[in-house]
Amino acid sequence: MEKLKIAIVGYGNIGRAALDAVEAASDMECAGIVRRKASSEGCPELARYKVVTDVDELGKVDVAILATPSRKVAETAPKYLEKGICTVDSFDIHGDVCRLRSQLGAAASASGAVSVISAGWDPGSDSVVRALLQGLAPKGVSYTNFGPGRSMGHSVAAKSVPGVKDALSVTIPAGTGLHRRMVYVELEDGADFSAVEAEILADPYFAHDDSHVYQVESVDALNDAGHGVNLVRKGVSGKTHNQMFEFNMRINTPALTGQALVMAARAAVRQKPGCYTMIEIPVIDFLEGDREDLIRRLV
Amino acid sequence: MEKLKIAIVGYGNIGRAALDAVEAASDMECAGIVRRKASSEGCPELARYKVVTDVDELGKVDVAILATPSRKVAETAPKYLEKGICTVDSFDIHGDVCRLRSQLGAAASASGAVSVISAGWDPGSDSVVRALLQGLAPKGVSYTNFGPGRSMGHSVAAKSVPGVKDALSVTIPAGTGLHRRMVYVELEDGADFSAVEAEILADPYFAHDDSHVYQVESVDALNDAGHGVNLVRKGVSGKTHNQMFEFNMRINTPALTGQALVMAARAAVRQKPGCYTMIEIPVIDFLEGDREDLIRRLV
Repeated sequence: MEKLKIAIVGYGNIGRAALDAVEAASDMECAGIVRRKASSEGCPELARYKVVTDVDELGKVDVAILATPSRKVAETAPKYLEKGICTVDSFDIHGDVCRLRSQLGAAASASGAVSVISAGWDPGSDSVVRALLQGLAPKGVSYTNFGPGRSMGHSVAAKSVPGVKDALSVTIPAGTGLHRRMVYVELEDGADFSAVEAEILADPYFAHDDSHVYQVESVDALNDAGHGVNLVRKGVSGKTHNQMFEFNMRINTPALTGQALVMAARAAVRQKPGCYTMIEIPVIDFLEGDREDLIRRLV
Repeated sequence: MEKLKIAIVGYGNIGRAALDAVEAASDMECAGIVRRKASSEGCPELARYKVVTDVDELGKVDVAILATPSRKVAETAPKYLEKGICTVDSFDIHGDVCRLRSQLGAAASASGAVSVISAGWDPGSDSVVRALLQGLAPKGVSYTNFGPGRSMGHSVAAKSVPGVKDALSVTIPAGTGLHRRMVYVELEDGADFSAVEAEILADPYFAHDDSHVYQVESVDALNDAGHGVNLVRKGVSGKTHNQMFEFNMRINTPALTGQALVMAARAAVRQKPGCYTMIEIPVIDFLEGDREDLIRRLV
């Protein structure tokens, strides 16, 4: 069977992890990397791949994994879709998922391609669990508790405060979907910690949570790509109350996102043209291997 | 929007729970109950429904929920499928799922109907979680740990031993997919407990597990429909090891099975003709409500 040809667009943490997952999959191969600069400098693992600035230089590509920032997806994906190349991304701005789905759905349908969006872990695999639990207990409350683990958005917000050289914001689950923010800052010479602390605590990213700021000598020394989720639902099945469900993960974040993107790439070529979130795709379509064998082993 | 018309075939624990779930769903209504005897005797909740021996007496039916024993599904489902009525069941003999899928797939395709099989909790919703975790960490080991909770199969096996008036076998999770069997027996007058114990422990249902037999005055006094699952996977995402996943449930068993059957009934009318397990159906298709609204809330 011919292997799926995958282009990886962008080569930061997520791009690297996606390449790992492509290399670990026996049903796909990396057609090359698309970057702003056509260089593999500093990335010895790219020596055996074409690194280009334009996907057209890669020959046949079935799916482009967009390992770009979420805010770039809406402008990047259509360029691939209009060439008939499927796209997958881990777009993670929850409130904008429906808008992106509608936009990319139109582009994908026009060219007969498929786009799978928000294929990370949240949104992504957590969404599949949330949807399943909604079905199993239609009445009830779900809470998604994140952490402990680094929040990129909060870390960037803290780093943007004047006087901050580097920052790490760790999300700590406080239960029932509430979170504590533990913020570690490395200051620039001469910066005043009290002023930095006050500005961080006043930032909308931190003002509504139980946030704590600490000065450290090295943020890099604290950096850990581990993260976690505790997703709970208590609800009613039929007319029976007190049904309890819980999903826990302790994972390396980029690795899981890279793997989710690869699952989505595999599923993309199995769907009809259009744009899909993970909850709109049969779970079996994400998996490598013979369909009947998968059913025998997993059902 | 017209409500789905659901017939419930069989009215034991699961049939009752399925009726609860149908009544709790605003997008479906119960068209009636199909039983061996057309009587609602002893079931006051059936007073407002037609209880019949033949589904043809119910008028239009979209989906038949087969709340019959697993071993009856293969002969019962085709009778409905050939009338163009979709069927759903909670067939739970893991090793025979593929055979049933192939048999009912042929019947369903021939008449343009849909059959969703093994739509309970295991197989069923657990299968969806197992498949998702297989995708998130393609290399690794999963364990499904059941209990504490009653095993019907083991209880029936223990009850069939001469001298046993009633029996309850409770499954206790021992970790890594192994289980302890706690067997409670109520003896007939004059029966010898030691002989009963020896025969139960020698039964293939119990001989391979850590099984313990206790004599009690009343099995009924111990009966509790609660059950649980702890499904774990530790594996590799891309090339990153030690990714940890866990799914836990503490649930009333018939209620969850009834709800899963109703999810499957809703999904059945949204699939193309054929036979499906739950992992072959997009999770969103199991849910009530507007598609875009579900995506907004759950993704």
